[in-house]
Amino acid sequence: MNQQYPSVLLEKAVDEFSRLPGIGRKTAMRLVLHLLRQDTEAVEAFGNAIVTLKHEVKYCKVCHNISDTDVCRICSTPSRDSSIVCVVENIRDVMAVENTQQFNGLYHVLGGVISPMDGVGPNDLQIDSLVDRVKAGGVKEVILALSSTMEGDSTNFYIFRKLNGIDVKVSVISRGISIGDELQYTDEVTLGRSIVNRIEFTGKI
Amino acid sequence: MNQQYPSVLLEKAVDEFSRLPGIGRKTAMRLVLHLLRQDTEAVEAFGNAIVTLKHEVKYCKVCHNISDTDVCRICSTPSRDSSIVCVVENIRDVMAVENTQQFNGLYHVLGGVISPMDGVGPNDLQIDSLVDRVKAGGVKEVILALSSTMEGDSTNFYIFRKLNGIDVKVSVISRGISIGDELQYTDEVTLGRSIVNRIEFTGKI
Repeated sequence: MNQQYPSVLLEKAVDEFSRLPGIGRKTAMRLVLHLLRQDTEAVEAFGNAIVTLKHEVKYCKVCHNISDTDVCRICSTPSRDSSIVCVVENIRDVMAVENTQQFNGLYHVLGGVISPMDGVGPNDLQIDSLVDRVKAGGVKEVILALSSTMEGDSTNFYIFRKLNGIDVKVSVISRGISIGDELQYTDEVTLGRSIVNRIEFTGKI
Repeated sequence: MNQQYPSVLLEKAVDEFSRLPGIGRKTAMRLVLHLLRQDTEAVEAFGNAIVTLKHEVKYCKVCHNISDTDVCRICSTPSRDSSIVCVVENIRDVMAVENTQQFNGLYHVLGGVISPMDGVGPNDLQIDSLVDRVKAGGVKEVILALSSTMEGDSTNFYIFRKLNGIDVKVSVISRGISIGDELQYTDEVTLGRSIVNRIEFTGKI
């Protein structure tokens, strides 16, 4: 549908919104018209928020998470256990693990996983900096918390080999049936793996 | 889920995006992180497009459609028939009718329909300016092309009464079963109305 926009400025704004992932031209139009109904301050706040973020965002020198400061809030909290480093793909994964409130160590954000199909090699990720960080000492355990995909598994293995020879424990988050899931609805690969990787029952959950 | 954002700037940007209709916090985060991966110029183009639109947008003096100029492109095209005015709710409806390529008259954008439930009365809409426009002369026919809802019908009736006594033909777009629809799947209200409002078959479609 070759739509004729009544205004070039409107078309430009719709163009920009429709470049966002998962936003088509109809949705973009709806969003732009919504913003247009807001007062000028609200629209400026919207436009400036993303531009300011882009200009002023920093990445933590230690863990490469997004941060407002040179060293992020998590890395600079003294009560956190700096001897355990949880390796994740991106900052959303940091937030996901933080939300569990089950982890009190530090993170290392890779920026993705090794994926030759997408042109992502080990040098595009923060793997060397992880190895340097572990070599610098003080890290007793590296927990690999990457996606349970082919690419995640390859990256796990690559990091494992890179850390080989350094005195550090390398662990991987457990995979198996989700809490609350019924066995009959679990996919067979997951179920099979959860049987192979069974752990001793101690009476505790 | 009370998420801890690693950066205040990031949180602010996510806040702004999640205020958009139909965008939750997870989607907002995805969009913000997508923009963050683009280069600075692209992010500035995005932020500026909507702010510029808000600052510089005009509404056509004649039909109240969005426009870059005082009188919009449609109203200022001499080849269009200024004696027929199609009344629509909003600019998306203008674009929808334009896309049919079946209409060569002008428009009048009401800005909504009368809806006491939403606190929208006749004075919130461009109804008086429509009456003035018709009174000024030169308009032979007003086509009411509002939504086929209770509110649309009320607004049709309100405008019809307002135009009563002025020498102008008032018509309403036809309603009935959609082109390509099978009778058995058409809702009974639409089907009933399309039987009551049947038109003479002339052999042409």
